[in-house]
Amino acid sequence: MSESDYSKKHVEYVAPEATPEEQAELDAMYKQMDSIHLKPLWRQIGGLMPNEPEPAAVAHKWDWEELYKIAQRSGELVPVGRGGERRALGLANPGLGGNTYISPTMWAAIQYLAPGENAPEHRHSQNAFRFVIEGEGVWTVVNGDAVPMKRGDFLLTPGWNFHGHHNIATEPMAWLDGLDIPFAHQMDTGFFEYGTEKLTDESTPEYSRGERLWANPGLRPVAFPGKTTASPIGRYAWEHTDKALNEQLALEDAGFPGVVSPGHAAVRFTNPTTGGDVMSTIRAEFHRLRPGAATTPVHEVGNRVFQVFEGSATAHVGEETFELNHGDIVNVPSWKKWHIEAGDDGVDLFNFSDHPIFEKLDLARTYTPEGI
Amino acid sequence: MSESDYSKKHVEYVAPEATPEEQAELDAMYKQMDSIHLKPLWRQIGGLMPNEPEPAAVAHKWDWEELYKIAQRSGELVPVGRGGERRALGLANPGLGGNTYISPTMWAAIQYLAPGENAPEHRHSQNAFRFVIEGEGVWTVVNGDAVPMKRGDFLLTPGWNFHGHHNIATEPMAWLDGLDIPFAHQMDTGFFEYGTEKLTDESTPEYSRGERLWANPGLRPVAFPGKTTASPIGRYAWEHTDKALNEQLALEDAGFPGVVSPGHAAVRFTNPTTGGDVMSTIRAEFHRLRPGAATTPVHEVGNRVFQVFEGSATAHVGEETFELNHGDIVNVPSWKKWHIEAGDDGVDLFNFSDHPIFEKLDLARTYTPEGI
Amino acid sequence: MSESDYSKKHVEYVAPEATPEEQAELDAMYKQMDSIHLKPLWRQIGGLMPNEPEPAAVAHKWDWEELYKIAQRSGELVPVGRGGERRALGLANPGLGGNTYISPTMWAAIQYLAPGENAPEHRHSQNAFRFVIEGEGVWTVVNGDAVPMKRGDFLLTPGWNFHGHHNIATEPMAWLDGLDIPFAHQMDTGFFEYGTEKLTDESTPEYSRGERLWANPGLRPVAFPGKTTASPIGRYAWEHTDKALNEQLALEDAGFPGVVSPGHAAVRFTNPTTGGDVMSTIRAEFHRLRPGAATTPVHEVGNRVFQVFEGSATAHVGEETFELNHGDIVNVPSWKKWHIEAGDDGVDLFNFSDHPIFEKLDLARTYTPEGI
Amino acid sequence: MSESDYSKKHVEYVAPEATPEEQAELDAMYKQMDSIHLKPLWRQIGGLMPNEPEPAAVAHKWDWEELYKIAQRSGELVPVGRGGERRALGLANPGLGGNTYISPTMWAAIQYLAPGENAPEHRHSQNAFRFVIEGEGVWTVVNGDAVPMKRGDFLLTPGWNFHGHHNIATEPMAWLDGLDIPFAHQMDTGFFEYGTEKLTDESTPEYSRGERLWANPGLRPVAFPGKTTASPIGRYAWEHTDKALNEQLALEDAGFPGVVSPGHAAVRFTNPTTGGDVMSTIRAEFHRLRPGAATTPVHEVGNRVFQVFEGSATAHVGEETFELNHGDIVNVPSWKKWHIEAGDDGVDLFNFSDHPIFEKLDLARTYTPEGI
Repeated sequence: MSESDYSKKHVEYVAPEATPEEQAELDAMYKQMDSIHLKPLWRQIGGLMPNEPEPAAVAHKWDWEELYKIAQRSGELVPVGRGGERRALGLANPGLGGNTYISPTMWAAIQYLAPGENAPEHRHSQNAFRFVIEGEGVWTVVNGDAVPMKRGDFLLTPGWNFHGHHNIATEPMAWLDGLDIPFAHQMDTGFFEYGTEKLTDESTPEYSRGERLWANPGLRPVAFPGKTTASPIGRYAWEHTDKALNEQLALEDAGFPGVVSPGHAAVRFTNPTTGGDVMSTIRAEFHRLRPGAATTPVHEVGNRVFQVFEGSATAHVGEETFELNHGDIVNVPSWKKWHIEAGDDGVDLFNFSDHPIFEKLDLARTYTPEGI
Repeated sequence: MSESDYSKKHVEYVAPEATPEEQAELDAMYKQMDSIHLKPLWRQIGGLMPNEPEPAAVAHKWDWEELYKIAQRSGELVPVGRGGERRALGLANPGLGGNTYISPTMWAAIQYLAPGENAPEHRHSQNAFRFVIEGEGVWTVVNGDAVPMKRGDFLLTPGWNFHGHHNIATEPMAWLDGLDIPFAHQMDTGFFEYGTEKLTDESTPEYSRGERLWANPGLRPVAFPGKTTASPIGRYAWEHTDKALNEQLALEDAGFPGVVSPGHAAVRFTNPTTGGDVMSTIRAEFHRLRPGAATTPVHEVGNRVFQVFEGSATAHVGEETFELNHGDIVNVPSWKKWHIEAGDDGVDLFNFSDHPIFEKLDLARTYTPEGI
Repeated sequence: MSESDYSKKHVEYVAPEATPEEQAELDAMYKQMDSIHLKPLWRQIGGLMPNEPEPAAVAHKWDWEELYKIAQRSGELVPVGRGGERRALGLANPGLGGNTYISPTMWAAIQYLAPGENAPEHRHSQNAFRFVIEGEGVWTVVNGDAVPMKRGDFLLTPGWNFHGHHNIATEPMAWLDGLDIPFAHQMDTGFFEYGTEKLTDESTPEYSRGERLWANPGLRPVAFPGKTTASPIGRYAWEHTDKALNEQLALEDAGFPGVVSPGHAAVRFTNPTTGGDVMSTIRAEFHRLRPGAATTPVHEVGNRVFQVFEGSATAHVGEETFELNHGDIVNVPSWKKWHIEAGDDGVDLFNFSDHPIFEKLDLARTYTPEGI
Repeated sequence: MSESDYSKKHVEYVAPEATPEEQAELDAMYKQMDSIHLKPLWRQIGGLMPNEPEPAAVAHKWDWEELYKIAQRSGELVPVGRGGERRALGLANPGLGGNTYISPTMWAAIQYLAPGENAPEHRHSQNAFRFVIEGEGVWTVVNGDAVPMKRGDFLLTPGWNFHGHHNIATEPMAWLDGLDIPFAHQMDTGFFEYGTEKLTDESTPEYSRGERLWANPGLRPVAFPGKTTASPIGRYAWEHTDKALNEQLALEDAGFPGVVSPGHAAVRFTNPTTGGDVMSTIRAEFHRLRPGAATTPVHEVGNRVFQVFEGSATAHVGEETFELNHGDIVNVPSWKKWHIEAGDDGVDLFNFSDHPIFEKLDLARTYTPEGI
């Protein structure tokens, strides 16, 4: 698809010249349409059906230091418990009219749990994950499986699994939550149910049962055949992610394929029963750029969110530029051209997106103006 | 899933008692959060994540006589042409804040074309169909294939196919258009491009080429193997739909399976290369109820729209009741319990829905409180 | 894949020069291997793993007049009934060592039923179809559904469906049966069970229930969602096959796509719940060649069988040539280059193959030496 | 499916009483049929279509000590090289008429490579794997990727990948090869091509590149999206298999699900791009039984082969019993009831089967007479 494909802009609809009498008739007609809940396409088509996506969402950066400080403050002022359910601060895209949506499809939040605190169990049809940017000492209990949360881990709570968390360490802990709450809310698909106030399992094992059964490379338990809609791996431990990225870069050094583009290693978290995404609506990846390396500029249908895990980077989104350091979060709205350049020490980036939604509905499109 | 599963309502979050000093601190914190585009989950969870879908969309009925009359009026006052593109009157759900959405996902409109008129060619990534409630004499040209439109026909314009229409009859013609415009708009997936102002093919064949190749029962051309994302059948002619429904009822009379429930015949329009829905985001069906028969009451995730083709019916949606006659349109918002009872002469109903979206994303749910 | 890819023939294994003592030791070793059921690869690899398929099956033509005459004769001499089950004459490929296999995977037979005769009900896991080259007056009852058999019809009896036949006409009737008996026999997958001696339904409807529900183009009963392993259409009536082929040729005349190659129309019989083949192991197609037209020469993994329905043709298979007239049957062994040229009046050809087996197992290969 | 389903045996076809004249006519008819390559179904149906699979293959045990000794002997007497290609001793099922088939579908062989020896490169469409029962020091080079072979490792050579081996250790090495040679041979699907006589890569890395990119649990390289027909993991290292089995037993001890049945842990080797089997035609698993534990008796369509890796066991197959020790190999023909009981120290069993063939063709069946 060439750039010119996207240059045929809408012709503005210009109502034909009308005499005052004609205009009065038109006005009367439009008023009547309104009264019976009709609207003419010809007066709105340009806004409704633009030549290419014109997202209301804007690109925005959230500063980790600010986020963390105010999360701490809320830990001092607001207890966590039934009713409020979670001490989570949702990132509200400035373009989305006050809704707590980082994109039209996705929710991102900082969740903060002080030592000894307990977030009660509940379940919802919304899919959820957590990414731990620092710290340890929290266990999340998902359908009765106690899952440790440590720095660099990526954790799943697929829709309709009961889950709660508790912090057994001496330090507070904060992490990134991602869910498809906006999609569920706008599409009217959400169900929610309370579980127990205390966790159903207060043990603190080193590995979750889901990992022990399923996080063995290329192996699956014969006892559980078939495909599952979400990955049965509850925790993708950092040690594996880190090693997989290192291997890609080592293979690149040795002259073999593996990286996405020069200096750019990336792994996707997958469901081992399908090889596909971890959950139906959410894709999650981890990207590592060598110092000075950059991703290929691309337009994509769908929304991405990045969080810097280590190092620093510059994100280019549309016409804007964002300097990113440890913990900073930035989003990329649909079809905005984006690329990320690593800083002097390279950068490690956690990434999630809503791309599976569009791929499953045959609505995905990408365009790399400079070729691949 | 029992009714009680949906009775565990949200506990209202009640902020703990606060002294004036504490309240001032809280207020300051919330204000600061706002300034950096953060919102606390605990103050919004009940609205964001209800126990079950609480759609903003409401059930509504549009009266065909009214629709047709005002469509005629717009035919007198507003020419059709480049810029406005189509003389289409969109049905705007009264609950959706002024948007021309019949549901959060779907667009429904009455399109009206006077004798000799021509709707210019364009293409868009949005999927579209047309259902002809009465009349004939229009051909829609889809990717160069001239497709006749006649009473009872169901016609496809899958995403990114160029298409235009012209009316060669002596009478105006009106039909129902359905598209996934709201979904594309909210999800930022839409692309649009102009084509020629005059139709690329002005012939008026009795059958389209798509039908001639693909509308042969259980047969496919060997020249075109594989699956396509949308059905290659451009026109589902009424004669086949009518016959298939009659057969189901005749089989019921003879004591054999075939109907959905007693007195309720239904066919789904499908993509013959997959056996699945005609397009990725839209399901279309035709239902026929014998006099006095009714559909089974059901809650479903997703939205349905019905148009009465012949006969009359009463639609029950949530707590509301709608009397439906020829051409009348009614919608069912997500998770509202609904059923339809045929009038004295039975009823023929065209139906479309967004169910494929939810099935593909593992978000579909149904609940029949009275059993099936 | 170029022709030269297939020119690297096996190097004949040449046992190294051996002294008499060495030879004695080798002989002793090979004898011992034999005694413990071992065989060395190096003495058999060329036969076991040829450079390209070297089928034992040969191309062969069976003459319809001969077939029909002897079928008639067997009708006079041998009653049909329980134990023998069917008056079917299996076509035994001369290369397959006396087994009644037309190919290593498929069975083809002429079945003959005299007026008033009844072939008792049974079921087997083997998939079966019938193709009616002439006549009418037999009904086959498949799982209780009485299916008429008429000239040109293609009929299914998917694995594990009870079925029997009876002839209610005043003339005997003969047709072609195709099954995957050899595959089931060699792969040890076959199950067989007797049903009633008399048919479970002796009615003689004009259309089967399967057709009435499922043979409506692009339409499926809402009451039966999902995919089925075999097509629910029990009978593919000739009128539809004929019309679909005519349409392809008419579109070719008008300059539009549709035919496989110039003058060569073809339809594949499909399962409307998937768009794929009618049964898991068998593909069935109908080909029509204009006078003088020919198919494209091709090598294919898998086996094809053709029967001339009308007209005449010359089949080229490997180095051999077969003149084909009404009813004649010819087979194409795996990887033999083949093409068919129509005679002066063109030709209508029924075709079946085992290609789905190889496609599902990622073993399919085709090679068109002259390009496509 | 109840036992009785399989008790309805074939009625023997009994030719009706015939006078000498009639018999002469019949004899003449059968003779004529023979001359035109026809065979009547009624004289062979019981053998061709038994009530349940009656495999020609028998259950047989190959003794590892015997196998190893004669492999050593062949190492002394027969060089390995171009033409013979591999020093592999194929296990010939005593029921399969002298063919080197362990089942109608599968080849199993002991391959033996002396220090310094080199098995030249070639490729074939047949799928292959290796399982290393003892030793190390051989690298197999698959499409240029040097893959180490160590005790307990399971290694893949999917169809049409060039591959060769060399032994750089000071000891000879022997391992189990499994391929779908019989299936390819009987079904006429095999292609074969020579590669280089010397290996294309003589390096001896600790891990293959395939492992480094793909054997990371739940992670896949973003650079290689999509599904592949065979697993990209060239080597399933023993350390992961062993750990996964230990975890299942530890979970069983703790009262959690994971094992197949009491005391019976099992993992399946999978393709991480699909979650399915490693190759299209072959399933591979590793089973571990605690002392005294046993698998559930079952009839299955398809063939299994077991090799004891550690410990001892008793295999029951049909009416037969086999005592198994380190390295011993036993096969289970289709539909023979089988179960395995662990010896006093438990048992570790490598297993492969042709089950994917039957599952993909909808021909799989299992029956557990004692329930599951």
